[in-house]
Amino acid sequence: MTGKLDGDAAGGARAGILVTGSELLTGQVHDRNGPWVAERLGALGVEVADVLLVGDRRADLQAGLRFLAEQRVDLIVTSGGLGPTADDVTAEVVADFAGTRLELDVELESRIAAIVARWAARAGFAGDSLAAATRKQARVPVGAHVLEPSGTAPGLALRVSDGPTVLVLPGPPGELHRMWDAGLAAPPVAEVLARTRPFEEVHLRLFWLPESEIAQTLRDVGPEVEESGVEVTTCLRRSELEVDLRYRAGAPGAAAAAGTLVAEIERRHGHHLVSRDGESTDAQVARLLAGHRIGLAESCTGGLLAGRLTARAGSSAYVVGGVVAYANEAKVGLLGVPAELIEAHGAVSPEVARAMADGARERLGADIGVAITGVAGPGGGTEAKPVGYVCFCVTTAAGVVKAMDPVIPGERADVRERSTDIALHLIRQVLTS
Amino acid sequence: MTGKLDGDAAGGARAGILVTGSELLTGQVHDRNGPWVAERLGALGVEVADVLLVGDRRADLQAGLRFLAEQRVDLIVTSGGLGPTADDVTAEVVADFAGTRLELDVELESRIAAIVARWAARAGFAGDSLAAATRKQARVPVGAHVLEPSGTAPGLALRVSDGPTVLVLPGPPGELHRMWDAGLAAPPVAEVLARTRPFEEVHLRLFWLPESEIAQTLRDVGPEVEESGVEVTTCLRRSELEVDLRYRAGAPGAAAAAGTLVAEIERRHGHHLVSRDGESTDAQVARLLAGHRIGLAESCTGGLLAGRLTARAGSSAYVVGGVVAYANEAKVGLLGVPAELIEAHGAVSPEVARAMADGARERLGADIGVAITGVAGPGGGTEAKPVGYVCFCVTTAAGVVKAMDPVIPGERADVRERSTDIALHLIRQVLTS
Repeated sequence: MTGKLDGDAAGGARAGILVTGSELLTGQVHDRNGPWVAERLGALGVEVADVLLVGDRRADLQAGLRFLAEQRVDLIVTSGGLGPTADDVTAEVVADFAGTRLELDVELESRIAAIVARWAARAGFAGDSLAAATRKQARVPVGAHVLEPSGTAPGLALRVSDGPTVLVLPGPPGELHRMWDAGLAAPPVAEVLARTRPFEEVHLRLFWLPESEIAQTLRDVGPEVEESGVEVTTCLRRSELEVDLRYRAGAPGAAAAAGTLVAEIERRHGHHLVSRDGESTDAQVARLLAGHRIGLAESCTGGLLAGRLTARAGSSAYVVGGVVAYANEAKVGLLGVPAELIEAHGAVSPEVARAMADGARERLGADIGVAITGVAGPGGGTEAKPVGYVCFCVTTAAGVVKAMDPVIPGERADVRERSTDIALHLIRQVLTS
Repeated sequence: MTGKLDGDAAGGARAGILVTGSELLTGQVHDRNGPWVAERLGALGVEVADVLLVGDRRADLQAGLRFLAEQRVDLIVTSGGLGPTADDVTAEVVADFAGTRLELDVELESRIAAIVARWAARAGFAGDSLAAATRKQARVPVGAHVLEPSGTAPGLALRVSDGPTVLVLPGPPGELHRMWDAGLAAPPVAEVLARTRPFEEVHLRLFWLPESEIAQTLRDVGPEVEESGVEVTTCLRRSELEVDLRYRAGAPGAAAAAGTLVAEIERRHGHHLVSRDGESTDAQVARLLAGHRIGLAESCTGGLLAGRLTARAGSSAYVVGGVVAYANEAKVGLLGVPAELIEAHGAVSPEVARAMADGARERLGADIGVAITGVAGPGGGTEAKPVGYVCFCVTTAAGVVKAMDPVIPGERADVRERSTDIALHLIRQVLTS
């Protein structure tokens, strides 16, 4: 799924990410910290070599640290295992890895106690269990740079002689995010970052282009680009194909080579190109909607398009609202779709999609109306209208009508998600045409 | 964040998961295959020791396979790197790891060509790039058990002398899912599975309980449970705390010990307990809604609650629809909220939430109405109504009214997600009271 040309890593630091948590190995929880840390390290010019998820067992953590060290990384970032329970052992294992031991930091203990007291008073919990948790979290490796807690657990930064620097961060994503800047500023980490040069990056997004087509383009143009130290990654994300180019700032010839590849992709696949600067379709649509008022009518997506448009801060400036018209009564009652139209063509039909879009626009006082009605499955499909058949319509007060009714592959969740992708692209087309 | 007591792994096979894809190391794409495979292996009684994400470089893949083999796993499952681009090298690296080499499987090549031809005809693509891609994907390790493509790439199952069996699966999640059963049935994998005993599992879900409280309970009762071979994992997932117990079927004393722990958690934290059988709140609410008709009115969540309720197949039986009333005009026009009520109390107020719930119920012809209106942030907060202040109301045709208006911590996305959690729990409370 990925076409990557190994680039020149010269001038860069390498990192490994070690995420702990037995719940991650049962698959019930998806790791959010690895990708978050990887993205930020990448932006700093640090190449992430590996992301390793291990359980909370001492031996597994130890093996993980050793493995990453063997990959000759300059920095290991860990997340998790700093909590109050007995097998939150990251601090202890990292101390051992660095050839030192844990010691109670009495001042840190009282700072944690103060944080915990505030929280406990609000939540109505207190007592011995909190004191024990506080004391455990205040035991830190001798010689470590302590990062103030952003929740109740401190972070740590340690130099390891003849080994990678280790940055130890808490597992809850919010706590990790709030501690990140302090982690980068900690002297042991800052020393590693000072040795790296940032990447220059180009992010292209293409809608509805098969991967084999971009693979052919890379085969034709890729080798000489590769020789210039440009790393090319392609990735299919739902309905969009992303092509990312990356090279070290100042690498000779790299910028020109990247430009050649971008020009060739524009030449061959220009009509699929959505953005040349990595701007997401969501951001682009939000920008294009400035000054407009949009109203939504959703059936099979059940509110997902509204949820996606309103995920952005400030979206109240252009999203008036929407109707999730799951039952036919809702289509008739709230959107004014004529019952006889549903009777004649079926609830999933281009005709009803058109009436839903107009209804949303008119009833919500919007100038753009968007409708999605389809068969998400697993049931409800017929030969004429199989599972995945979805009717889209965007209409504007100025009389523009943009419609399509593809059969979208995949399971219920895929059909629903891809339908929101397609709707966003239709809105984009209407706003740019 | 995790309290886990190491259980007895006797009687079980261990596995490692190796996920390849350079895009995963930039953080721009989140791995979905590792958790999916981990969950399914766990259900079969196979303990997952590590999940390792590496780039598409040969050396990184080789190091990953060696590391997992050193962890004494019986099975390595790989995903990704089977595509048509030049650096999709998994088959080649795995062949090398197993001490064999790639060979073109001519019959496989023609089967792939047939698949590709059907797809290319529909999509309007063809030519040399497809033929080259087909040939590359038909080169398989000598002696490997070939799994028929579920997309265009075949999977592989290989025995490795003095090493773990390797199951090689494609990276696109849909392809991987469709190939899974064939992978388990492949003789090299089936031999590993025959050596393991499944786990017995107990899944408890608690709503709105601090982790320190469950940590105290585990400190008090945990050690003897641990000695009996029961592994306990706790995990905070948004608003719910999950406590999972797991032991090998037939392990002496384990079932009784697990029962003791469950009873103690019920005794201490019973009023927080949502489910004793792992049933998700979503599934529970869906079950409870049978025979009802629910209508939704969402402001700050912008359709997320509707999206969540309609994510389930069959939800059209009880979800009539909803109104995403983002602008005040939508609250007035589509839900019949009196403009003077908004004027008097503000759009984010218990009074308006109540009117929205009643309006959704009446306008949609439902017997349960649910309203959410709040300040998701980052802007819009005041001292009296800060960011995170959210008003909920559930009303029924029978006159039941359930309301709350907490201040929810976190960023915009957190506030919106947790608001849907809370709304679901309020619906649950109304339906079970």
